[in-house]
Amino acid sequence: MSSTGLFVTLEGVDGCGKTTQATLLVEDFQNKGREVVRLREPGGTRISEKIRLFVLDPQYDEMCDECELLLYEAARAQLVREVVQPALERGAVVVCDRFYDSTFAYQAAARGLPANVVSMANSLGSCGLAPDLTLVFDLDPDEALERATHEATDRVEGEGTEFQRKVRNGYLKLSQDDPNRVHVVDAVGSVEVVHARVRKVLAECLGGSWS
Amino acid sequence: MSSTGLFVTLEGVDGCGKTTQATLLVEDFQNKGREVVRLREPGGTRISEKIRLFVLDPQYDEMCDECELLLYEAARAQLVREVVQPALERGAVVVCDRFYDSTFAYQAAARGLPANVVSMANSLGSCGLAPDLTLVFDLDPDEALERATHEATDRVEGEGTEFQRKVRNGYLKLSQDDPNRVHVVDAVGSVEVVHARVRKVLAECLGGSWS
Repeated sequence: MSSTGLFVTLEGVDGCGKTTQATLLVEDFQNKGREVVRLREPGGTRISEKIRLFVLDPQYDEMCDECELLLYEAARAQLVREVVQPALERGAVVVCDRFYDSTFAYQAAARGLPANVVSMANSLGSCGLAPDLTLVFDLDPDEALERATHEATDRVEGEGTEFQRKVRNGYLKLSQDDPNRVHVVDAVGSVEVVHARVRKVLAECLGGSWS
Repeated sequence: MSSTGLFVTLEGVDGCGKTTQATLLVEDFQNKGREVVRLREPGGTRISEKIRLFVLDPQYDEMCDECELLLYEAARAQLVREVVQPALERGAVVVCDRFYDSTFAYQAAARGLPANVVSMANSLGSCGLAPDLTLVFDLDPDEALERATHEATDRVEGEGTEFQRKVRNGYLKLSQDDPNRVHVVDAVGSVEVVHARVRKVLAECLGGSWS
């Protein structure tokens, strides 16, 4: 844990419900009187948002995988230095929708970039900062895709369920490799049911500072 | 050496004369009937040039060191994948004005970013490609600064000679660590005298394929 603040990241395939759960989690912390900074990646600073627009601009379709990866990491580094670290230092809770585990799950596990390359890139982009706690909202890709379509999220993957299955497996591997940090939350069920599971994980991990 | 092409990079502090020497070196290779691709960093592709403009734009003065580093590496990765590797594969000589040794000399040795961080970043940005041969044009920083001012180069460092001295020492360290690749060329003397030194290094390193 950070000495003062708390850095929580939310992960999962598109349509897993993490954005809704982030809203509820932010309210939980605010109800406890904590300052909460809510972020999403990529973005969150003027420079990071500019990089986001550049990476997602379809006119640059010749962009190679490594360039794309390094641009995401550049946006991340700016977010960490400009927003996340100062917030943690003043004791805030930072709730971030996606962080470097997304890069591992999407770029390495799903797209096939070597894991050690993505790991190095993540180390650089995060400026060495690790989340205190990561929640992976786990859902069968078929169900996630259906939800994403119904909820009209802003980034419904056109990659199909096979791709999403690789992403899911990437997340599950992370939780096996780093079980103290990465917690899998079953995302099947109503918003309230899933939220109760989130609260249970936080109570177990944070103990007195949560309850 | 690459199996077919040849990747030569030119390094040194601003004002060391490497741009003039690059022109002469390109002519030498062309006179031998080789296809030569001449590049400078950062730049050389549509995406890399756009990143260059972004990094150098003074309106983004809040940019952190890691973000700047990763943007340079993103531009480099695109250059390697889109231009350098295809050129080498078709047997061309690539002459590049600055490559990843500049990142080490400027960001690590002079600005103080940890050497292992810059080394990781360079490994990512180069996509694992190393130059076959690197020429470091070595000059006392006081003399280099005077030349740079007289020659009105487009990027005269405003950092002063103490900074340039650190850059120089960074280059000298690289030549000690990797003497088979990185060759120091004394840059004191007329254009013709320095060019003769360059030709001598190439003859020693390339042997039959050069003479």
